[in-house]
Amino acid sequence: MGIYQHIKQEAYLANMQLPKLNLVLFTFGNVSAADRDRGVFAIKPSGVPYDKLTVEDMVIVDFDGITVEGKLRPSSDTQTHAVLYKHWEDISGIVHTHSTYATAWAQAQSDIPIFGTTHADHLTTDIPCAAPMGDEMISGNYEYETGFQILNHFKDLGLDYREVEMILVGNHAPFTWGKTAEKAVYNSAVLESVAQMALLTRQINPQAPKLKDALIKKHFERKHGPDSYYGQ
Amino acid sequence: MGIYQHIKQEAYLANMQLPKLNLVLFTFGNVSAADRDRGVFAIKPSGVPYDKLTVEDMVIVDFDGITVEGKLRPSSDTQTHAVLYKHWEDISGIVHTHSTYATAWAQAQSDIPIFGTTHADHLTTDIPCAAPMGDEMISGNYEYETGFQILNHFKDLGLDYREVEMILVGNHAPFTWGKTAEKAVYNSAVLESVAQMALLTRQINPQAPKLKDALIKKHFERKHGPDSYYGQ
Amino acid sequence: MGIYQHIKQEAYLANMQLPKLNLVLFTFGNVSAADRDRGVFAIKPSGVPYDKLTVEDMVIVDFDGITVEGKLRPSSDTQTHAVLYKHWEDISGIVHTHSTYATAWAQAQSDIPIFGTTHADHLTTDIPCAAPMGDEMISGNYEYETGFQILNHFKDLGLDYREVEMILVGNHAPFTWGKTAEKAVYNSAVLESVAQMALLTRQINPQAPKLKDALIKKHFERKHGPDSYYGQ
Amino acid sequence: MGIYQHIKQEAYLANMQLPKLNLVLFTFGNVSAADRDRGVFAIKPSGVPYDKLTVEDMVIVDFDGITVEGKLRPSSDTQTHAVLYKHWEDISGIVHTHSTYATAWAQAQSDIPIFGTTHADHLTTDIPCAAPMGDEMISGNYEYETGFQILNHFKDLGLDYREVEMILVGNHAPFTWGKTAEKAVYNSAVLESVAQMALLTRQINPQAPKLKDALIKKHFERKHGPDSYYGQ
Repeated sequence: MGIYQHIKQEAYLANMQLPKLNLVLFTFGNVSAADRDRGVFAIKPSGVPYDKLTVEDMVIVDFDGITVEGKLRPSSDTQTHAVLYKHWEDISGIVHTHSTYATAWAQAQSDIPIFGTTHADHLTTDIPCAAPMGDEMISGNYEYETGFQILNHFKDLGLDYREVEMILVGNHAPFTWGKTAEKAVYNSAVLESVAQMALLTRQINPQAPKLKDALIKKHFERKHGPDSYYGQ
Repeated sequence: MGIYQHIKQEAYLANMQLPKLNLVLFTFGNVSAADRDRGVFAIKPSGVPYDKLTVEDMVIVDFDGITVEGKLRPSSDTQTHAVLYKHWEDISGIVHTHSTYATAWAQAQSDIPIFGTTHADHLTTDIPCAAPMGDEMISGNYEYETGFQILNHFKDLGLDYREVEMILVGNHAPFTWGKTAEKAVYNSAVLESVAQMALLTRQINPQAPKLKDALIKKHFERKHGPDSYYGQ
Repeated sequence: MGIYQHIKQEAYLANMQLPKLNLVLFTFGNVSAADRDRGVFAIKPSGVPYDKLTVEDMVIVDFDGITVEGKLRPSSDTQTHAVLYKHWEDISGIVHTHSTYATAWAQAQSDIPIFGTTHADHLTTDIPCAAPMGDEMISGNYEYETGFQILNHFKDLGLDYREVEMILVGNHAPFTWGKTAEKAVYNSAVLESVAQMALLTRQINPQAPKLKDALIKKHFERKHGPDSYYGQ
Repeated sequence: MGIYQHIKQEAYLANMQLPKLNLVLFTFGNVSAADRDRGVFAIKPSGVPYDKLTVEDMVIVDFDGITVEGKLRPSSDTQTHAVLYKHWEDISGIVHTHSTYATAWAQAQSDIPIFGTTHADHLTTDIPCAAPMGDEMISGNYEYETGFQILNHFKDLGLDYREVEMILVGNHAPFTWGKTAEKAVYNSAVLESVAQMALLTRQINPQAPKLKDALIKKHFERKHGPDSYYGQ
């Protein structure tokens, strides 16, 4: 058993959740799990179908995006993961998918408005959508720049990545993260559900108002913060 | 076998129906089953995933919301269940979910219009949507007040909870109930289906008229009332 | 083995297809299979869940709607089936469901326009929607009158029930039929698919034109008529 | 083992993917696999249900549409396959389905706009929709003419069938192709997903802009071309 076996295992199990939760078609998604002490993360290899994936296929990469161990090429989105791990020290799991409803909002270049308590149970703001990058960033080190696009959008909006664990990259698709890979996958599924309900809400009532502050505060604090009383 | 075993079993089985009927994502739902003679109900513990849930995990709570038996913390929505059981003496099962279409109508703060016989087979009015609560109620004993928000909305509309076994809480999500936990789960699935068909009906014909009185009366009486002839 | 065993078996198998094809929630559907020589049909009993249904539960009813054999009460829609069998001599299977998209069109009181070849592979006209009945018909022998509402709508439109094997009953839901119960179930699934695609087509292009005559004729004749060349 | 066994096997396996990927209802789809050296392709027989299909049922047809081997009648769309194989020498797999969202766009007679990177990962242009054919072509050798309708639309738009591996035939449904039958099936699933997300994108933002050139170029080149770095 190698020293990276625990994050290979964690990344593998989290990756295998994506098809079960209907968040991916074919290979259009990837999950990574970080070992903060060793400064590395395990990530899905590029283009390998989920039904052929094994624990040993996971690739170990450091926070500068350099492959440390593994026979396969890591996910093409690896540099984005590396940038986020390097700058956001409290996360140890990242997920990227092209899940249907979240991707539709990203393609529409629109934030997802906070319409209900399902949303507020997880974050207190609209789900942000970063603008597409400038052309030089795209034609340069694209996936690396995608990481900075995310970091900068959070900085511009004054958002804390520990409180808002998801973003849409405009014209592209969602990224989510969390303290573990499992939590990051959970966030991807929540995002997809909230994205679907927000679209339906607008279809029922184009003037649907956002959730009011008292409800946002109450629901978020039920699940998070010092006085939370959700769960065991 | 304890004296609460029958309602623990009933609550467990009813809770396990929610994922099978696609009414919940993760732990976003809960069912309770009441024993009227003993003045208690069994309810899902808070935040426990459905695939880990056991009969013994069910928590026994009285109609004032005080836990009577159980090692785990009951659902965060327990006080809402308690209020409803205390005031509506003919119900012995309650369900809360964030099912996709019903929640979208709740987020849109809109009643679900009675458009067809599927709806009229179960109730003769629009499915009511209660307004979000005032800020003091929210920041106070929120789940307890949610119960009164439901009771008061029924009182304001002059609805009988024995005839209309479902409500949307504005910006939040649906609650349903019934003579048993199984019936309450059935009502949640009916509500979700009716909510989806009502949205589609409006998309096909924004001026779709409501069902006329004669059809409402006929379909409801086929399944309910003294001359019903549906079922065995 | 009784003399009705073959239609009990046929009706049972056809009924069991409804949940597999996602055409019913709970017991909201029923299929019958007729024996023309004996002048009877086998139909699902009322309100029995699909996972409890057995071949022996099927009820034998004649074309006047009188129960001939069976311990259970037949479907509440039995009189509608009887009327259709009595007047349309070339059909031996009937299905009623509340399938989501077809029911939404029925609730919208709208014919389903013929937008594409999937539709034209099965019929050459819009899928007709009969108006809701007059109040006296509803409060009278409702299910019996529903049969005549269907017969009369076909007469009014000059449609041949051998060519158009489906209808929407306004504010209610679809009925389909065919030479066998299996074919009637097939028609219910086709209707649901066509109903969904027609709604989506309008959402993409509110001015979408109907299929032109040459394509309607070609596709229908590929599958039907003297020069058909589809299938074996 | 006959000399066509390898393409019969390939066509069989590819056909069986269609129901697994939710791309067909009943028999509304077909896949073929070509052997370029022998100038033939194996194709699904007409109207045979997927759960009854066997490898030996596959029919061998040459590029002029003449059946070379097989007991069953080939798919009614066989002539379309033959025309495409004859004129597009670099493809060895073709798929035709009536998948829900792609067919809705075809019925709406609308190209699918390139709204995001999921689309650009696979092609750099809108997904083209060919107009319905003239009446004489329809009433003549319809399926043969459908092949030319596709060829001519690509010629008119200056598209390369090696880069754009999918088309919508107006009022009808999609065709996709590729170097193998498996790749053609993959393209059908991608098309369906892109078609659904494009509709949702427009519903969220009717003025959603198309993807900008730099992103189109980048994403396509990540997966294709000399500097691709996706996959193993």
